[in-house]
Amino acid sequence: MKALEERILKDGQVRPGNILKVDNFLNHQIDIQFMNEIGKEFKRVFADKHVTKIMTIEASGIAIAAIAAQYFEVPIVFAKKSQSINLDGSLYSAKVPSFTHQTTYDVILSKKFLSKDDHVLILDDFLANGCAAKGLISIIENAGATLEGVGIVIEKGFQSGGKELRDHGIDVRSLAIIESMTDDGLVFRSQN
Amino acid sequence: MKALEERILKDGQVRPGNILKVDNFLNHQIDIQFMNEIGKEFKRVFADKHVTKIMTIEASGIAIAAIAAQYFEVPIVFAKKSQSINLDGSLYSAKVPSFTHQTTYDVILSKKFLSKDDHVLILDDFLANGCAAKGLISIIENAGATLEGVGIVIEKGFQSGGKELRDHGIDVRSLAIIESMTDDGLVFRSQN
Repeated sequence: MKALEERILKDGQVRPGNILKVDNFLNHQIDIQFMNEIGKEFKRVFADKHVTKIMTIEASGIAIAAIAAQYFEVPIVFAKKSQSINLDGSLYSAKVPSFTHQTTYDVILSKKFLSKDDHVLILDDFLANGCAAKGLISIIENAGATLEGVGIVIEKGFQSGGKELRDHGIDVRSLAIIESMTDDGLVFRSQN
Repeated sequence: MKALEERILKDGQVRPGNILKVDNFLNHQIDIQFMNEIGKEFKRVFADKHVTKIMTIEASGIAIAAIAAQYFEVPIVFAKKSQSINLDGSLYSAKVPSFTHQTTYDVILSKKFLSKDDHVLILDDFLANGCAAKGLISIIENAGATLEGVGIVIEKGFQSGGKELRDHGIDVRSLAIIESMTDDGLVFRSQN
């Protein structure tokens, strides 16, 4: 997505530890008009998929999933990152190591919101080592639901998550893939 | 908002400890079509306000703020609940006691996303004791920004948060206010 690559070049900031900050339009402050363009692009990319539910993980995936869901006309569910006393005891869960916080957390989803009849599209802001996506995929497998694909705004192509998921036959589409990220600048992977 | 009261009566579940679960349409699974009606209603209710930014707190406020922001045509910022190494050192912060998790957490917002020129509308899913809203308000005050109002989907009118904020002259509008909540049912406060 050309407009996304241009926005990353304009507003993204590279920080030590392979961190790309895009927090002025994607995941702290959110440019809703631009997010709508991202939502429409996900619909275009996954136009041939039968999607009954969009799934994401709190917190920064929620805005993307909510805005995109308008174009798919399906509900979203978001997995939560720790057991809340507001949730039922009847939960799907998966353990996920966190790159950002250098710890492991539980991802949970109430069983009543995912069934074997669901066709699920996962949407998230970043894909790096793929840990969050793998946690969501294991929940979808536990539910017996069908994974239709994984849509990512920014993939760090120099980390292994995208390759591992695609090697498992999962349809991963990233609107921008960063091939390399150094002090000298960003290089995007060319996509058709 | 009549449609909201009807939806709460249809789908809400009262649990011990004054917990109202509305997680099948508002804050775990999200009915995006219905969320759009909520977004439009917030725009109608705050039509006379000059809003430059919508502010909320992760995680369940994000979908509401994102969908509503489309009608206000402004960016959203969401405050985060703990220090992330992805955030700048330059942060506004406030301490917030959590009713749900029976603990205290820090609410943080990067200073670059809120200035004295901003006119802020706070949106959130629930208002009970008002702790989250008070944390966001203290951040807005620290930034020297102008608070235009607080929009809430469901207010627990039998808890003190709404009254305390209104007593401080804050324009709090709740789309549904629960007057009482018992095993026998819910009673809504009548609003003009």
